[in-house]
Amino acid sequence: MKLLKKKIREEGIVEPGGILRVDQFLNHRLDIEFINEVGIAFKDIFRDRPVDKILTIESSGIAIATITAQYLHVPVVFAKKNIHVNLPNEVYIEQVESFTQKKNNQLVVAKKMLCHGENILILDDFLAKGNALQALLNMVQKAGANVTGIGIVIEKAFQGGGDRIRDLGYDLVSLATITAMDDQSVTFSDED
Amino acid sequence: MKLLKKKIREEGIVEPGGILRVDQFLNHRLDIEFINEVGIAFKDIFRDRPVDKILTIESSGIAIATITAQYLHVPVVFAKKNIHVNLPNEVYIEQVESFTQKKNNQLVVAKKMLCHGENILILDDFLAKGNALQALLNMVQKAGANVTGIGIVIEKAFQGGGDRIRDLGYDLVSLATITAMDDQSVTFSDED
Repeated sequence: MKLLKKKIREEGIVEPGGILRVDQFLNHRLDIEFINEVGIAFKDIFRDRPVDKILTIESSGIAIATITAQYLHVPVVFAKKNIHVNLPNEVYIEQVESFTQKKNNQLVVAKKMLCHGENILILDDFLAKGNALQALLNMVQKAGANVTGIGIVIEKAFQGGGDRIRDLGYDLVSLATITAMDDQSVTFSDED
Repeated sequence: MKLLKKKIREEGIVEPGGILRVDQFLNHRLDIEFINEVGIAFKDIFRDRPVDKILTIESSGIAIATITAQYLHVPVVFAKKNIHVNLPNEVYIEQVESFTQKKNNQLVVAKKMLCHGENILILDDFLAKGNALQALLNMVQKAGANVTGIGIVIEKAFQGGGDRIRDLGYDLVSLATITAMDDQSVTFSDED
């Protein structure tokens, strides 16, 4: 996605430790016209597949999932982070090591939000090592639902999560794939 | 907003302590067609006022702010909760007592996200005691920006926050105003 690469190059900030900050358009300030283009891109990629529901993670996944859901006419469910759980038998809980935050997060989805046999499109803003994505895949599997596809806005391919998930047989599409980055430059793969 | 009251009555769950759970359409699962109607309602209310930016709070404010922003053609900034702050001089930080979660949250907005003289529309899903809203108002004031209006999806009027904020002179509009509730019924004000 050409516009996305342009925005990463012009507005993204690379921080030490392989962190890319895109606070200006995706993670703190939301550039709604840009996010609309992201939604159109995901619609064009996944429109011919069965999608009953979009699953994402709070907070940065919510805007892109919301806009995409408008185009695909399906509801969104977002996994919650680190909430107090009153009724542990009624939720799926997964522990996730966060790459950016250097701490463990607990992801929670109420069991009634994922139904047996549903076709789930998973969307998220970033894919690094793939730990959070793996947690969502585990939940969908426990629910007996199907993963119809995975859409990622920015994949940091040099951290290996994308290839690991693809090797499991999932159809994972990223709108921008970064193969290398330092504070001077960001390198994208050719195939975007 | 008639559809909202219907959804609160049919899908909302009242829990002890004055808590209303609307996980089925607003706080965990997002009913996108319904949220689109919320966005249209806020657009109709605020379309004739100057709005440069929408300010909301993660996570449940993001979807409604995103859809409303599509109609008003402005960006969204969402306050982050309980994040690690590397550069405290570059952010506004406010401590907020959360009514639902029975704990204190720290709200953070980067200073560069709010500009002097900007017209800010504040949107959020719930208004109870008004502590989180007051935190956003403090940030906008510190930035030297103007609050052009405040839009709330569900106001729990019996908890007093709305009247307190209105008494300060702010133009606060709620799409549904609950005057009383128990596990048997939810009572709305007449003026919605």
